[in-house]
Formats: sequence, C-alpha cells, structure tokens
Amino acid sequence: MTLPHNVRAEPDLLTAVAEATLLVFVVPHQFLGGICEQLRGQLDPRARAISLVKGLDCLPHGLHLVSRRLSSTLALDVSVLMGANLANDIAQERFSEATIGYVHRSHGELWKRLFDRPYFRITLVQDVTGVELCGALKNVVALAAGFVDGLYSQGGADNTKAAVLRRGLLEMRALCRLFDPQVRDETFLESCGIADLITSSYGGRNRRLAEAFVRAKGSRSLEQLETELLHGQKLQGPPTALEVFRWLDQRGEAERFPLFTSVYRICHEQRDPSLLFHDISSAYTLL
Amino acid sequence: MTLPHNVRAEPDLLTAVAEATLLVFVVPHQFLGGICEQLRGQLDPRARAISLVKGLDCLPHGLHLVSRRLSSTLALDVSVLMGANLANDIAQERFSEATIGYVHRSHGELWKRLFDRPYFRITLVQDVTGVELCGALKNVVALAAGFVDGLYSQGGADNTKAAVLRRGLLEMRALCRLFDPQVRDETFLESCGIADLITSSYGGRNRRLAEAFVRAKGSRSLEQLETELLHGQKLQGPPTALEVFRWLDQRGEAERFPLFTSVYRICHEQRDPSLLFHDISSAYTLL
Repeated sequence: MTLPHNVRAEPDLLTAVAEATLLVFVVPHQFLGGICEQLRGQLDPRARAISLVKGLDCLPHGLHLVSRRLSSTLALDVSVLMGANLANDIAQERFSEATIGYVHRSHGELWKRLFDRPYFRITLVQDVTGVELCGALKNVVALAAGFVDGLYSQGGADNTKAAVLRRGLLEMRALCRLFDPQVRDETFLESCGIADLITSSYGGRNRRLAEAFVRAKGSRSLEQLETELLHGQKLQGPPTALEVFRWLDQRGEAERFPLFTSVYRICHEQRDPSLLFHDISSAYTLL
Repeated sequence: MTLPHNVRAEPDLLTAVAEATLLVFVVPHQFLGGICEQLRGQLDPRARAISLVKGLDCLPHGLHLVSRRLSSTLALDVSVLMGANLANDIAQERFSEATIGYVHRSHGELWKRLFDRPYFRITLVQDVTGVELCGALKNVVALAAGFVDGLYSQGGADNTKAAVLRRGLLEMRALCRLFDPQVRDETFLESCGIADLITSSYGGRNRRLAEAFVRAKGSRSLEQLETELLHGQKLQGPPTALEVFRWLDQRGEAERFPLFTSVYRICHEQRDPSLLFHDISSAYTLL
C-alpha cells in the first residue's frame, strides 16, 4: 500500500499541530495522556478535533470518554468517528461505512466532507457519547461471541451467536441510556452500533482470544493468550468489561445486564464460560 | 434425535385438527392453499393459530402475508413466531430465541407459555406484520450478503458485509413502514429482525447460493445452482426480491431502496453482482 502524496509524517508533535485547524486523533489509549499534556495551550483557538480512538479512557475507576478528556484538556470541540472500518480494507477501497458523532452540526458536516467517499460512506448523528460508547462496549460483546465460538467449535452456533449479539446490543443501549439519557436510539442502528458489533463478533481480536480461551479449557489465562497470540498488543475487551461491571455494580444495576456481568465474571472471576447462556437466560426479561 | 412421547404424527388433516384449540402452522408455502381449503369451516370456533411459516404468501403480485391468508380464510386469530432458530439447534437445547407477534396480548402470552424454555427464550411484540415481514425480507438481504462473500472470496469482507447487513436492516424497516405505518421500530431489534438477519447472512441457503452464483461468474444461473445444490428445495430470496421490487416500483419507491433493487436486478435482470456497492453507495442518503 502506497500512502498518498499529501500525507506527510511529522515526528515532532508541536510542529505537526502548528497552525493546524483540523486535528485527527488516532493513537493507542496509553499515549493519550502524554499527548494531551504536550498540546495543552498550544493549539490554534479555531482548531477542532475528531477522535478515532476506540475504547474508554484509561483512568482508574469509572467510564471515561476519550472525547471528553480531549475536549476538556485542550478546550476543543471534539467529534468522534467510529464504525465497522478496518484500515486495510478501506485502503483497498472496499465498500464500508462510518458514523460521526458531533456536538455542532456544522462541525459534523465539515468532517463528513473530509472523510466521505463513494466507498466509505459517513453518516452523522448528534450523539458523541452514544457513538463513542458503542466503540468501547462492542468489545465486551465480541468476547461473548468468542466464548460461543469456543463452546460450539463443531459448528451449529449460528442462532446462539445471533442471540448473544442481539442481547449485547440491547445491553449496550440500556447502559448508554443509564450513562446519559440523551443518547439516541438511532445511534445503535448506525455503523458504530450494529455494524461494528457484527464485524467485531465475527472477526476481531477479542473474539479470537475469547474462543482460544474456551478451547484451552482453563490451561491458559486470557493474559497468557494475549502474550502468545497478540505479540504485545493488548485486548480492550477485558478491561472494558471490568470498568463496565464496576460502574453497573456501584449503581445496583449489574443484575439487569447479565451478558456484561457474565463476561466480566468469566474474564476476571474464573467463572465457567459455559454458564454464559444460563446467566443470560435467567435474567432475560430484566431489560 | 428422538421425538418426545407427547408428539403424535397424524396424517389426516381433519382428524388432526378435530377439537384442537391451538393450531401451529409449519408447512412449506406451496401447501398452504390446499390446507386452508380443507380446513375452512372445520375448526373449533375457539381455536387460535400461530404461523411459523417464513416468507410471503405465494399469490401473484403484491406482498401477501401468510398470517393474513390464514386469519381471513379460517376466521381465526393468528399470531406469528419468527426468529433465529434452526430446528436442529433447538432440539439440542442450544440457547436461542424467537419473537412472537400477536394481535391480542392474552393470545401472545398463551403462546409464550407454550414455547418459552430456558434455552429458547420468547419475546412478545404487538406487531404481527413487522415480525412476519422481517421473516421474508431478511432472505433478500441474505442474498446480498452471499454476493459479498462471493465477490471477496479471499477474505477481508467483514466491514463490507456488516455495512450491507446494516443497510439491509434499514431498508427492511423502511419497507415495513411503507407497508403499514403501525409496524413498531422495536421489532427490528427483536430476534425476528437483527438476529435472524445475522444468522441468515452468515449461514443459510440464500447466502450460500448467492455466493456460489458470484463464483460461477455467469456460468450458472441461480435456478441451475438451486437444482444442483438444493436437491429440489426452493430458495425464498429470489421470488421475494421480485415481489418486493414490483411492489416498490409500483409506488415509485424503488430508488430509495438501492439494496433491495440491486438484489432484484442481479437475480432477475442479469445485473453484474459487483455493482451492488455502487448501487448502494449512489443512493446512500435516500432513506
């Protein structure tokens, strides 16, 4: 893959942002803090930003949105872009989509003009929180999908997996509503919702490691498999499951979210993965 | 698989229904007309029915619901049960779900008591039309999913396929709204909607034949592949795509439904399957 001529790599962060009015954040979580510190007070006051960073902000306890950290530290308006879009596929101009969540309509439209292509279609929603939480929560559901694949490795899991994905989508929506009642229902039918959930639950690293974890029948922890199979990259699903469970538990809401809670217990409390269905079924009507 | 003791096969239809007050219809379309004629006027007046028949009624022109035919011919209240539930998997007690669409709440609850199990969870919606149309329309989207699999047979189609499924779900919802404005948005997040769509687009015969059709690169028609691969069974997707296109076209709405229209043209007008993405993308914002 050849990068286009108008893409220039600039190793010095402050040089890169000098006079920039449009900032696109695409970095692994763990670098976010350092970048924010360097950029604080250094940006053009007209600058606006968009975050493509998936997952929650790495702060202790609570659900923290990356966009919130960026906008508060840098005093910027921050939109987010999420969805079912792997970089390699888009580079090959294979048809895909993304969702932009914005605060100000005019900013959303500007970002759309920048990203939208016939092979990469953008839809806009005025819902930064919903779009960004979808990008994080779908990793928890993808773990559940991987457990299903591991449990039914002889095939015949199509219906079960679809049921787990659907339940996951409902829990994602219910959690978002608890987090912020302004989150819009329609967001879950955007690319950032249902489409990214499907992609992550059929492909994706969280799914793959969760499957390997079940097949190892207790002989390997998720951390060991991460080291063996991901070569230093980190799974986002398990820490997200932990933060989500703590957040729900503090509110006395964990029971209403049997899928999220079961994934948490399987990842962090040695619960038997085959109890996933029992867990979901026994609290089925609570949402 | 052994059938339970309380299941009895009765070859004579009128003997089977004599004194029956709960009738479950699970037959291929083409036998429905004959069965209705035999049953007309022969049923207990207290009888109520539920239809598990997926797909549209086989009448010339128009979108005809099986439940509508049953309720009008037999003067019965008819609920429907749809969802991501293959018989073999349920018989093995693998976790799955279904949606029951009802007219009268009390009837829905009665059917739920009959079908609901810890490994087979039922949800109820007061929306017979939405539930039943989902069961038919998802076959058209599954054909599109199969085209994607055929076009990207080297892999790397995850995002594209998720985008096509999502678009399909939106067109299903928009068509249902045109057909009957009473159809409920929530129905599309039930098992009959999103879950059955996923199952059919990853497993399922429509998907499989659509993939084979693209790989054959014009050397085989869908009809030929049906004969070769399905051994006498019939695909529901292509005739449904035809009826859906005619129905939309008569209303001047075909353009707003680029996925349904493209699938129709690929199946019935020799359109090149690789134009599917172009078709979807160029009318992307019309829904």
